[in-house]
Amino acid sequence: MEWISKSNILIVGLGLMGGSYAMALRRLGYHVTAIARRQETIDYAVAHEIIDGGLAEPDPELIGSADAVIFALYPGVFVDWVRDNQQHFKPGAMLTDVTGIKRCIVYDIQELLRPDVEFIAAHPMAGKEVYGVENSDDRIFHNANYIVTPTKRNTPQAVEWCKSLGRILGFRKVSVLSPEEHDEMIGFLSQLTHCIAVALMTCSDNRHLVDYTGDSFRDLTRIARINDGMWSELFLKNKDALLRQMDLFAGEFQQIRELLAAEDREGLREKMRLSTQRRAYFNPAPR
Amino acid sequence: MEWISKSNILIVGLGLMGGSYAMALRRLGYHVTAIARRQETIDYAVAHEIIDGGLAEPDPELIGSADAVIFALYPGVFVDWVRDNQQHFKPGAMLTDVTGIKRCIVYDIQELLRPDVEFIAAHPMAGKEVYGVENSDDRIFHNANYIVTPTKRNTPQAVEWCKSLGRILGFRKVSVLSPEEHDEMIGFLSQLTHCIAVALMTCSDNRHLVDYTGDSFRDLTRIARINDGMWSELFLKNKDALLRQMDLFAGEFQQIRELLAAEDREGLREKMRLSTQRRAYFNPAPR
Repeated sequence: MEWISKSNILIVGLGLMGGSYAMALRRLGYHVTAIARRQETIDYAVAHEIIDGGLAEPDPELIGSADAVIFALYPGVFVDWVRDNQQHFKPGAMLTDVTGIKRCIVYDIQELLRPDVEFIAAHPMAGKEVYGVENSDDRIFHNANYIVTPTKRNTPQAVEWCKSLGRILGFRKVSVLSPEEHDEMIGFLSQLTHCIAVALMTCSDNRHLVDYTGDSFRDLTRIARINDGMWSELFLKNKDALLRQMDLFAGEFQQIRELLAAEDREGLREKMRLSTQRRAYFNPAPR
Repeated sequence: MEWISKSNILIVGLGLMGGSYAMALRRLGYHVTAIARRQETIDYAVAHEIIDGGLAEPDPELIGSADAVIFALYPGVFVDWVRDNQQHFKPGAMLTDVTGIKRCIVYDIQELLRPDVEFIAAHPMAGKEVYGVENSDDRIFHNANYIVTPTKRNTPQAVEWCKSLGRILGFRKVSVLSPEEHDEMIGFLSQLTHCIAVALMTCSDNRHLVDYTGDSFRDLTRIARINDGMWSELFLKNKDALLRQMDLFAGEFQQIRELLAAEDREGLREKMRLSTQRRAYFNPAPR
């Protein structure tokens, strides 16, 4: 049984992801506290035994008692929170996060951070189409990937600690990428696919088609139920990489359109064969 | 327990869909024969008790003994087959099909058909990413839609017969659309989504990303494994409707791209909220 040091853990931001982290860590025997925006969130999480305790404000004592702090905030408020409250961190504390984009977060925080604490960034690629602490569910980690994104400033000890955290949370696969590699990858695999799903739902009023919808369409648009506050921020903070991926996709889609318009059957078949061949690498899911 | 008249059933074309029809109908007690291109297909289906018997040629006696004929052929060969072999149909025989597009098939066949037999078209919206009689599986019908596409030439009796067929095969929902409504709907729900999945796989060499792939991407590209022979034909034969749907989608996708490029967060959120709202109609699947 693996174990991580830093057993007094504070979660900052108690939504779906923060709550799911808390649930998993508390079950493993760690002491888990939380800071949330609203007192009701803390009350709910305490009543449902998701956390041991918490507060609706950045209390110096609560922050100072944590060996490790996990940030599950929107990217826009995350950097400010650290700037405003870092004087309270316990010396030697380990900080990590769950943010879905990395370049715009990691360097800023490492730049402004006190030298006696360390921030090692991670992205748990898990989620649901619902949010809020009430939907916390640590089973979402079990078939998901966990990516640690260190920079040159990070120590090998912190990288190892963060990988251990991913493993004890139950992620299927733990890997390491640079913040730049991460953001390009997430632009393609996650953000582009969300753009596509949204465009598919908004391009025409298709509600009358619900009776004829098969599994393919449902699968393709499952992610079209999207938390607009969070995702618009993630898109904007990864704008360059996402625009690049969108243009690649749109260009390819247009090529397929031209093949169809020209009734170039062999050209269409060529695309379909390449697609089938590439998709085979992704299937079946390695579980 | 529902029952359909025409209990001696011939399946023409014994692939995944023809085989799955045969499997379900034989299990219900109908006498099921088949005509396939290759003798091995017939041998396999007989050995695995999918059919009662069959031949690898359009045998006049076999055709003439069927009360009902179900065509599970590619659209390109379907019309020719009927033209070449219709002299053998039993007077009063009922014909139906499984073709995924309707306008280019239904009118041509009804136009050339002997007046003493009737063709009532249907589209079982079920499938798999694999094909061939060896993959026959009538469970694919259970969560799927079945659409009857009658024209003015069809009798109410034939429409009822065809709806009964869909119900006894075990489809979740049986409905009726005109061939034109059907092709527009299928252009959006099925063909456009396949184009998107293919473009997503072919727009860049993404095999190195397999390690980071989550369920969203897998769901979105499941249909990127595509039977290029069949789908290229379905695309071309529904070209006008599919191009229309592709242009609608591409225009909307481009709008989202422009909102992102302009950093118009409120505009992005607006699209995401509309998407979320529309997607709610499609979820959960009415089972």
